[in-house]
Amino acid sequence: MTALKILVMHGPNLNLLGTREPQHYGMQNLSSINASLAELGKGLNCTISTFQSNHEGELVERIHQAAGEVDGMVINPAAYTHTSVALRDALLGCNIPFVEVHLSNIHSREEFRHRSLLADVATGIVAGFGAESYALALRGLCDVLRAKGGDKNGVDKN
Amino acid sequence: MTALKILVMHGPNLNLLGTREPQHYGMQNLSSINASLAELGKGLNCTISTFQSNHEGELVERIHQAAGEVDGMVINPAAYTHTSVALRDALLGCNIPFVEVHLSNIHSREEFRHRSLLADVATGIVAGFGAESYALALRGLCDVLRAKGGDKNGVDKN
Amino acid sequence: MTALKILVMHGPNLNLLGTREPQHYGMQNLSSINASLAELGKGLNCTISTFQSNHEGELVERIHQAAGEVDGMVINPAAYTHTSVALRDALLGCNIPFVEVHLSNIHSREEFRHRSLLADVATGIVAGFGAESYALALRGLCDVLRAKGGDKNGVDKN
Amino acid sequence: MTALKILVMHGPNLNLLGTREPQHYGMQNLSSINASLAELGKGLNCTISTFQSNHEGELVERIHQAAGEVDGMVINPAAYTHTSVALRDALLGCNIPFVEVHLSNIHSREEFRHRSLLADVATGIVAGFGAESYALALRGLCDVLRAKGGDKNGVDKN
Amino acid sequence: MTALKILVMHGPNLNLLGTREPQHYGMQNLSSINASLAELGKGLNCTISTFQSNHEGELVERIHQAAGEVDGMVINPAAYTHTSVALRDALLGCNIPFVEVHLSNIHSREEFRHRSLLADVATGIVAGFGAESYALALRGLCDVLRAKGGDKNGVDKN
Amino acid sequence: MTALKILVMHGPNLNLLGTREPQHYGMQNLSSINASLAELGKGLNCTISTFQSNHEGELVERIHQAAGEVDGMVINPAAYTHTSVALRDALLGCNIPFVEVHLSNIHSREEFRHRSLLADVATGIVAGFGAESYALALRGLCDVLRAKGGDKNGVDKN
Amino acid sequence: MTALKILVMHGPNLNLLGTREPQHYGMQNLSSINASLAELGKGLNCTISTFQSNHEGELVERIHQAAGEVDGMVINPAAYTHTSVALRDALLGCNIPFVEVHLSNIHSREEFRHRSLLADVATGIVAGFGAESYALALRGLCDVLRAKGGDKNGVDKN
Amino acid sequence: MTALKILVMHGPNLNLLGTREPQHYGMQNLSSINASLAELGKGLNCTISTFQSNHEGELVERIHQAAGEVDGMVINPAAYTHTSVALRDALLGCNIPFVEVHLSNIHSREEFRHRSLLADVATGIVAGFGAESYALALRGLCDVLRAKGGDKNGVDKN
Amino acid sequence: MTALKILVMHGPNLNLLGTREPQHYGMQNLSSINASLAELGKGLNCTISTFQSNHEGELVERIHQAAGEVDGMVINPAAYTHTSVALRDALLGCNIPFVEVHLSNIHSREEFRHRSLLADVATGIVAGFGAESYALALRGLCDVLRAKGGDKNGVDKN
Amino acid sequence: MTALKILVMHGPNLNLLGTREPQHYGMQNLSSINASLAELGKGLNCTISTFQSNHEGELVERIHQAAGEVDGMVINPAAYTHTSVALRDALLGCNIPFVEVHLSNIHSREEFRHRSLLADVATGIVAGFGAESYALALRGLCDVLRAKGGDKNGVDKN
Amino acid sequence: MTALKILVMHGPNLNLLGTREPQHYGMQNLSSINASLAELGKGLNCTISTFQSNHEGELVERIHQAAGEVDGMVINPAAYTHTSVALRDALLGCNIPFVEVHLSNIHSREEFRHRSLLADVATGIVAGFGAESYALALRGLCDVLRAKGGDKNGVDKN
Amino acid sequence: MTALKILVMHGPNLNLLGTREPQHYGMQNLSSINASLAELGKGLNCTISTFQSNHEGELVERIHQAAGEVDGMVINPAAYTHTSVALRDALLGCNIPFVEVHLSNIHSREEFRHRSLLADVATGIVAGFGAESYALALRGLCDVLRAKGGDKNGVDKN
Repeated sequence: MTALKILVMHGPNLNLLGTREPQHYGMQNLSSINASLAELGKGLNCTISTFQSNHEGELVERIHQAAGEVDGMVINPAAYTHTSVALRDALLGCNIPFVEVHLSNIHSREEFRHRSLLADVATGIVAGFGAESYALALRGLCDVLRAKGGDKNGVDKN
Repeated sequence: MTALKILVMHGPNLNLLGTREPQHYGMQNLSSINASLAELGKGLNCTISTFQSNHEGELVERIHQAAGEVDGMVINPAAYTHTSVALRDALLGCNIPFVEVHLSNIHSREEFRHRSLLADVATGIVAGFGAESYALALRGLCDVLRAKGGDKNGVDKN
Repeated sequence: MTALKILVMHGPNLNLLGTREPQHYGMQNLSSINASLAELGKGLNCTISTFQSNHEGELVERIHQAAGEVDGMVINPAAYTHTSVALRDALLGCNIPFVEVHLSNIHSREEFRHRSLLADVATGIVAGFGAESYALALRGLCDVLRAKGGDKNGVDKN
Repeated sequence: MTALKILVMHGPNLNLLGTREPQHYGMQNLSSINASLAELGKGLNCTISTFQSNHEGELVERIHQAAGEVDGMVINPAAYTHTSVALRDALLGCNIPFVEVHLSNIHSREEFRHRSLLADVATGIVAGFGAESYALALRGLCDVLRAKGGDKNGVDKN
Repeated sequence: MTALKILVMHGPNLNLLGTREPQHYGMQNLSSINASLAELGKGLNCTISTFQSNHEGELVERIHQAAGEVDGMVINPAAYTHTSVALRDALLGCNIPFVEVHLSNIHSREEFRHRSLLADVATGIVAGFGAESYALALRGLCDVLRAKGGDKNGVDKN
Repeated sequence: MTALKILVMHGPNLNLLGTREPQHYGMQNLSSINASLAELGKGLNCTISTFQSNHEGELVERIHQAAGEVDGMVINPAAYTHTSVALRDALLGCNIPFVEVHLSNIHSREEFRHRSLLADVATGIVAGFGAESYALALRGLCDVLRAKGGDKNGVDKN
Repeated sequence: MTALKILVMHGPNLNLLGTREPQHYGMQNLSSINASLAELGKGLNCTISTFQSNHEGELVERIHQAAGEVDGMVINPAAYTHTSVALRDALLGCNIPFVEVHLSNIHSREEFRHRSLLADVATGIVAGFGAESYALALRGLCDVLRAKGGDKNGVDKN
Repeated sequence: MTALKILVMHGPNLNLLGTREPQHYGMQNLSSINASLAELGKGLNCTISTFQSNHEGELVERIHQAAGEVDGMVINPAAYTHTSVALRDALLGCNIPFVEVHLSNIHSREEFRHRSLLADVATGIVAGFGAESYALALRGLCDVLRAKGGDKNGVDKN
Repeated sequence: MTALKILVMHGPNLNLLGTREPQHYGMQNLSSINASLAELGKGLNCTISTFQSNHEGELVERIHQAAGEVDGMVINPAAYTHTSVALRDALLGCNIPFVEVHLSNIHSREEFRHRSLLADVATGIVAGFGAESYALALRGLCDVLRAKGGDKNGVDKN
Repeated sequence: MTALKILVMHGPNLNLLGTREPQHYGMQNLSSINASLAELGKGLNCTISTFQSNHEGELVERIHQAAGEVDGMVINPAAYTHTSVALRDALLGCNIPFVEVHLSNIHSREEFRHRSLLADVATGIVAGFGAESYALALRGLCDVLRAKGGDKNGVDKN
Repeated sequence: MTALKILVMHGPNLNLLGTREPQHYGMQNLSSINASLAELGKGLNCTISTFQSNHEGELVERIHQAAGEVDGMVINPAAYTHTSVALRDALLGCNIPFVEVHLSNIHSREEFRHRSLLADVATGIVAGFGAESYALALRGLCDVLRAKGGDKNGVDKN
Repeated sequence: MTALKILVMHGPNLNLLGTREPQHYGMQNLSSINASLAELGKGLNCTISTFQSNHEGELVERIHQAAGEVDGMVINPAAYTHTSVALRDALLGCNIPFVEVHLSNIHSREEFRHRSLLADVATGIVAGFGAESYALALRGLCDVLRAKGGDKNGVDKN
């Protein structure tokens, strides 16, 4: 089983994690989340790289750069979930399988957070488990990527 | 660490799993999924009970029966996701933390599947990973239930 | 004045009364409500039968059975208020005058609870008085049924 | 048990009662309704005052005047149900518990009558019983007000 | 041919006529309009009374007073066209045939002016001819009222 | 005062007048309406030409032909009121003042009849008076056209 | 049993049948469909006349001509289903019972094809069976027309 | 030509047929309809089984059972047409061609009956012919099923 | 610099200020607010008159009276913000520049408070500062009125 | 009274001020506005820092940096008012009281400018006074911040 | 390179070009536009035929006639852009690649002009360049048609 | 004829051209497109500068810089077409005529791509021709800019 390369991408304001609205996002900060994912990645035989930006354009360009380099992405698009067609186009254009992650349950927040511009083209969605959402997403992504390779359980969502 | 009691509930038509629309749901059947969850449960120190029904009323009553008996639920409400206020009321009335699970990505299917009558009162949501969605949900639910008990990372979604 | 025969019907989850979301529904349980109504019925010269089910189909069939047997119904359709065309069709098909009852004020709850699939074909509506809603509905129904018979005040709502 | 002071308020055009659209409102006129309520009030140990106006501003000011003087209101806002934010603000501002009453079933009339600007802040709602709607509302209001005082059945609708 | 009694009613702000937004309403003032209508009424064998108010309640009450006294009304509800269910109820309750009049073409103004709460229960509608709109409405109303009496051309709009 | 040239245009199905849905349109037929208008035109010092077609394209072309030849139009667009942008474009393109006429009150019929694709660019609107609607429209149109010439009361609707 | 006279009307583009979008409409051409219907008509004791036009106005006028001559119509309005109020008015004005037919299932095509301007005033609707749709519609229409005459099963749809 | 196996399924309240709202559904009862279909089936060389239930779950399970056993279904989903995603999922999951049948014309009834959750995945739709709707649907279904086998006229609706 | 004449107008229920919903409106009463504004007016070289009414018609007429007398208005339309076209028409008809004021932030309250019928024709809008909102509005109005006169910074909002 | 630290933030395109659409924004440029605010700040005992960016991400990060450093913000989000959930999240996450400012009246411009993604979480809103809007906002913000500290008039908007 | 055959089709009212609403359409007339296109066609090696009609049915039939005869169409559907499903069906049925052309920018005109019933099935769209729009469309169409033949740059829009 | 200065601007993800979703965008890369436009520019006597960015703020600032320097712009806003009010404001504020370009036909893609925040203020729109769209836009822009200068055909779209 060859190692998978996974990019974990954090959208705007997630650099505030650990300080911001703990009732929605828990108290872990971003580097401890990234560290936990790296640790988990070892067990799942995958290499984790991470990236955070508050700039839509930088996120778009990091995806461009990832094309051909990574096997899949775990992305928490945060606010851009609801407003960025550019992120969608980057993900579609680079054709990288990705899982959409949210720390909080977006369905129990403001109406405008119920629409995602990415969800219908995602491989899967995980929301509401706080920092654990990332870990679940990473597990799920690896499972799907390996199943695609080896046809284990034939999941195919188009 | 005391064991958690988890009820895994499958909604209408999921008894067809393994035969039905494999492009959406994969090829595993329900008993193999239940068996895998029981196995995973051991590792997570939780006892799994399972239930499937095509009858909204039976699902409602199984939830009633679970009140006070289980620590949480993993529920794939299937078609009732979009049409059953009764399930919502049962879950709210019995006050059982639950994770909403979908095998396929409901956002990439028909418009009417984009609305969930349960999502905003769920603890978390996992969708799109085929049978693996259940496993991720179970992991996430245990994590949240244990964090609530021991305040590990203070996730609190109201 | 001949006695009226009234069927009081309770929809899904109402068997939980006394335990469930007391901020919405009060603390009386269903049998004490039924007992109070039977008592009130004596004073109003009517015979009360009662029925609760969590199954849409059973509620439909109880209405069928009531056709030709009862003079009117007091119905708390609970969750099915908002989702059951089948209940509406049963009530229309059997042509039984009914009052729609809600324990809580459905207009101060979730948006989807503001639409009733029964209200426009009901004789009257009572909501928000907790268990007392049933008693008011029973009084109102008897008043209307007797007025229709004897033309007392000519209320006629089509 | 101390007596309750209740203001019964009738909105625009209700002075026409007994002459207007009998298919919707019955044939009783306003003074006979008021007289019946006074009579009923005696049995319920409450003092009834009544007020009718066709002027939104007068209704608003009568509510202001009632603040601190009455224990609750029975209000048939008639046409202003659907158009008056000022009545809503007066009721909220004076913090008087009230029951919203309609003679006819507003859900079986024109589309624009289905929206009430008061309903979500009312204690309860009674509609469709003709003049009897007022009596039911009065009973229900007294029941709720007394329950609040003595915690009889803990109804609490926020 | 007996004379018809017609009430011409002017809604809010129409006392400003001749001074206000001449691009919408022309330069005639209200008394000259009333005088012209009285003159026209003579030729049509009808007696004209007129009323203007800026108070919704006064307009409602003037309609109540007209019930049984007039054969029909010409009404320019102005701003209340779009916001007053009370006027609608008064007109329906008193069962007076009326023509809805507008000086300007309400369809070429703000979106919210396109909805009339009276139009669907009016006998007819005339809009856009400035002060002449009233004269046309008066002619049309007389024609319809006389046709109803003598069945001349069987117009019947329900 | 020079004579005005007015084209009266009747849209689809109006050739059926006198036979069709008398509850909406009265019992006069089209030629008697045209004759009455010719007669009325004499009194108003205008020459009336008339045209009926069931073909959208023919109505469009008759308007083209009228450009520069007539001073104004009275048009009953019938069904094309709600569906023809081509008629609107013809009227706008040829810049002919016109009054929109309806025999029945379109606001008391089906929802889709409430939208007119012409009304906002019409000089005025008359609806609901049966065949008399045409006569009122003709009077109103002449009044506006002459006022524009001589600035009598400055009505100007843009 | 006297023979019924039935007009079968085909709307715009149906002259292309047999060449156009076979995945929606099958491969039969219009004359073979008409011939089959004539044949079927013999067995059902009815005389079939047929008409196709791409012109809304011609379809309207063919309906006018049919008034009083035919007992009912089978109409495939094709594109005009969704855009022609004029056809609706012609059918209503002439008061001819008709069945609406579609070769393909309009509900599985573009959103704008889901709205029919005729369906609510049709006797019945048949869609999705290709050329066979016409045959079913003809059978159904004859059945309803004969039932109306002889009250066989009292179907009455208003 | 081998015989086709067809399941005719009747949804909620259809057991009331013959007693309920005859203006919508005619006066035949369900067993006479079933008997007529069995008779018609003989002529069409198909074997008919029938099933009625008021329970959504039972209808779902009868469809499961039919998978692999029948060649097609004629289904009158009644109230569940508008509310059951579970029925849709069962039909899609079991991949059985079906025709959707309605006794009355659903487009001329309440707004909420205009949306079908099944129509876009049906083979065809027949509505408005009373009990005859079933017969037409059966004919149409057999025609389509046989055409698919033998490619007679290539109808193919996806 | 000549003094400006400013009318400060308070809409319905604002006479309750100091007693009503302090979480929205603060604890100052209306006369202390008026007194503060008079004081502030001195510093800004303007004369302040004030008016409060709960009657839409009185507010309309006070605006009529102000036409030609005042240079501008500060208006807190309260509930009539959302329901009164008559106020809008009075302000437009009298052509008085005005600032719309709200004590609370209307955007964080009920959905129906988000629509203002005045805002698009106001000079400016101030909301959310409690009683201080009036003072800010007065300052802003004076600034704009003086800028218009002397072209200081060319603000021009149409 | 200790000095307040206020950050004034200008969104995209506001560097163009003084050159761009003077009918909406007046003719002052950004540095003169900033200078005026600094001057005004002195009188209000507050220190003003200013920031302008056309980059959503830079605005987000400037807010992050301000957390814990400033007492409040005056923000003119310009175009990002209507499109940036990221700005909203930054402001919520950093929990800085802010006033939303607009130079022009956004309600009299394009429809899409009527929705603000920030307004409901702002302390207050000022719009329509050109450059003066900033000064009013600054005054209002200081007033609210000081009132919160010293409970002067208890304004509290949640 | 063989010559391409192109049909240029002009919809309703375009025969007015040069006289009608020059602010939207410029001052060239239709024959000069056609002449320019013929000239341009020579340079592009294509033969141009042209057609204008105000009749939807004639446009439909000209498309039918073009099937198999032309390689592509440049069509300015004018008013029928927004109302004609029949044109769409003709274009789809005949399977002719076409470019949709508008002289003016339809997005800056009335709301109802923003929806095109053809655009999603067009090869390309050109709008806003006056008569030059046709020339650009012709160039673009030729480019696409030749690219399809020779695979030059693989553009493929489905 | 003096040369025109044209800025060609490419929005987010267009640097991927030649690699991304060739079914939508063709296979040319951005530099070959730019080179072709430079070549075409020579023939049209205009100087072409080009700019691509994935950052909304950079695009905004490049427009600021272009103000006063270029005669017009060809802009493919890509994803920002649907989400950027800032781009619209920059273009409006700098008052540069521009043509909106899309490689693919945005009307045949996802619903959210049908709304453009720029289209109504563009000079013209070209979509669907792949890389050729730019060339057509450049030709059209030059034509309009020169016509404006010399009044050749008076196109004027506001």
